[in-house]
Amino acid sequence: MATIKDVSKLAGVSVATVSRYLNKNGYVSKEAAETIAEVIEKLNYRPNNIARSLAGMKSATIGLMVPDILNPFFPELARSIEDAANGYGYTVMLCNTDNDSVKERKYIDTLLQKQVDGIIISSYTIKPEHLTGLQKQSIPVVLMDNVFSSDSVVSLTVENRRGGELAVQHLLAQGCSKIAHICGPLTITSSRERTAGFEDASRGTDWFTPSLIGYSDFTVKGGYSAMKELLALHPDLDGVFASNDLMAAGAMKALQETGRSIPSDVKVVGFDGIGLEMMNPELSTIAQPISELGKTAMDSLVGLIREESDIVTDQVFPVTLIKKQSTRKN
Amino acid sequence: MATIKDVSKLAGVSVATVSRYLNKNGYVSKEAAETIAEVIEKLNYRPNNIARSLAGMKSATIGLMVPDILNPFFPELARSIEDAANGYGYTVMLCNTDNDSVKERKYIDTLLQKQVDGIIISSYTIKPEHLTGLQKQSIPVVLMDNVFSSDSVVSLTVENRRGGELAVQHLLAQGCSKIAHICGPLTITSSRERTAGFEDASRGTDWFTPSLIGYSDFTVKGGYSAMKELLALHPDLDGVFASNDLMAAGAMKALQETGRSIPSDVKVVGFDGIGLEMMNPELSTIAQPISELGKTAMDSLVGLIREESDIVTDQVFPVTLIKKQSTRKN
Repeated sequence: MATIKDVSKLAGVSVATVSRYLNKNGYVSKEAAETIAEVIEKLNYRPNNIARSLAGMKSATIGLMVPDILNPFFPELARSIEDAANGYGYTVMLCNTDNDSVKERKYIDTLLQKQVDGIIISSYTIKPEHLTGLQKQSIPVVLMDNVFSSDSVVSLTVENRRGGELAVQHLLAQGCSKIAHICGPLTITSSRERTAGFEDASRGTDWFTPSLIGYSDFTVKGGYSAMKELLALHPDLDGVFASNDLMAAGAMKALQETGRSIPSDVKVVGFDGIGLEMMNPELSTIAQPISELGKTAMDSLVGLIREESDIVTDQVFPVTLIKKQSTRKN
Repeated sequence: MATIKDVSKLAGVSVATVSRYLNKNGYVSKEAAETIAEVIEKLNYRPNNIARSLAGMKSATIGLMVPDILNPFFPELARSIEDAANGYGYTVMLCNTDNDSVKERKYIDTLLQKQVDGIIISSYTIKPEHLTGLQKQSIPVVLMDNVFSSDSVVSLTVENRRGGELAVQHLLAQGCSKIAHICGPLTITSSRERTAGFEDASRGTDWFTPSLIGYSDFTVKGGYSAMKELLALHPDLDGVFASNDLMAAGAMKALQETGRSIPSDVKVVGFDGIGLEMMNPELSTIAQPISELGKTAMDSLVGLIREESDIVTDQVFPVTLIKKQSTRKN
């Protein structure tokens, strides 16, 4: 069996450098990293796990569970978490749970067996009792998109309700006088909050009527169908707030297909702030701070792993209106 | 410590059912699965790994490495692999390597330490020597998007070159008389092949000139810039073949911004067949058989894990022209 000394000798670097490389802790030049990686492969060297444990890492791996990998929001979130994790020397195992609570529990089980140092769970469906297994084993957990009233779980969310309100206020400021809303699944807390925000800003206005709300499912196809139904009921609508960017993209397609021009006939705003650069016109959106969310999730998880005492359990992040062509004033 | 009998008793199902659930092997009703999952959690039961080993699975987990999780092709591929893996009782650990060979090797290392049963690697950058660590430890590997001339590695690819040719032939058949090409990174084999296919079909025609090829990077932004440059050189072009759908989407945006109508002024075809349902007009594309690729990758991996003798090492899948609005005849 090769040792760390063999690696150091053959790579022509100090044992300390190899150790920094292995523990992903501290600076190693790109060339040194390349050479060390090659030597490790050549010697078929497997680092002693004791060294890692000394650095406070069980396995230098964290788990990340996302509910829908086909929604670009989650790959973008995963990338931002990955960048932050790599900065701390962790690699990320990504699990796609498909909003399926049976799958979700299987993944939690699998991650426990793989001895990850911690888990970040972005889930629409998870309930506090699903985390008992993790808590019994003292595995640090950070929850996203879901808040439990429990001190032992760190939760990150965004101002979903405020975002819904912001979207309507923006459409009104741009001159809209009849605004429809495409809402996401009612089983999802953040989705319900966005719709509540729409209602906060719309109820009491002279144009509001409940049939201006179309029910959909966070997909492009769903947004497209909901828009077609809303247009049949309200052909004179001139503004649309969709609870995520994918539904907004579907709505834009339905509007264009029925001969409406965006933004001159109808203005559209989405939610999430994913990079839909291919849209024409470009989509205005209520953006979540995706990279800040990823970074904070990882910072909090590392804080829990290191048993730091000053971790904020509930963090709510502000959202930002990004003005693009789809809501430009006529 | 709880036993499988305790779980069976409390869940009100047979030990065999619990065993099928644990080994993800055979039918368990959705209700039974839900109940068993709850009881397992309640009792904090950890299945004995011996049972799994008996079923031929080391850990009932496989690793999947993808080069770019922000390109929707890879989340779609991951979903199809996941579905196939779940059918076999495996869960999937997804790793995003960012086309970075240092990251790629770290992930291979991590997956080995996690004792996965096998690894599916979709990589632009991997070289045969990077797989030696895996082969020394006899870990089954299936490669996608890359072919090594080695019997010990199973490789899946698609007819990239034929696809490039098909794209040009389709544009010509739809009436185009000057076709530009936006090619992807030249470091990527499949990308080079698609461009070779474009050249096969274009070279020798009276309209072809090398400056009709724009060099880009597989992103929407890259396709957009390349299209702008091509339009400056060839304002009279009337057809575009982009080597992936994201670049085609960027190209469409550049064409529309410069006042060109699609498909009447310029026709556009992409490559990959990802679900860009939000595009208006909808994009014609040379589609890869994503779900078949995912299923075959998993079938082959399971074949390697079970040491079956009839595994085909090199499989090349056909591509299909999907005709949508972006290449409709005038």
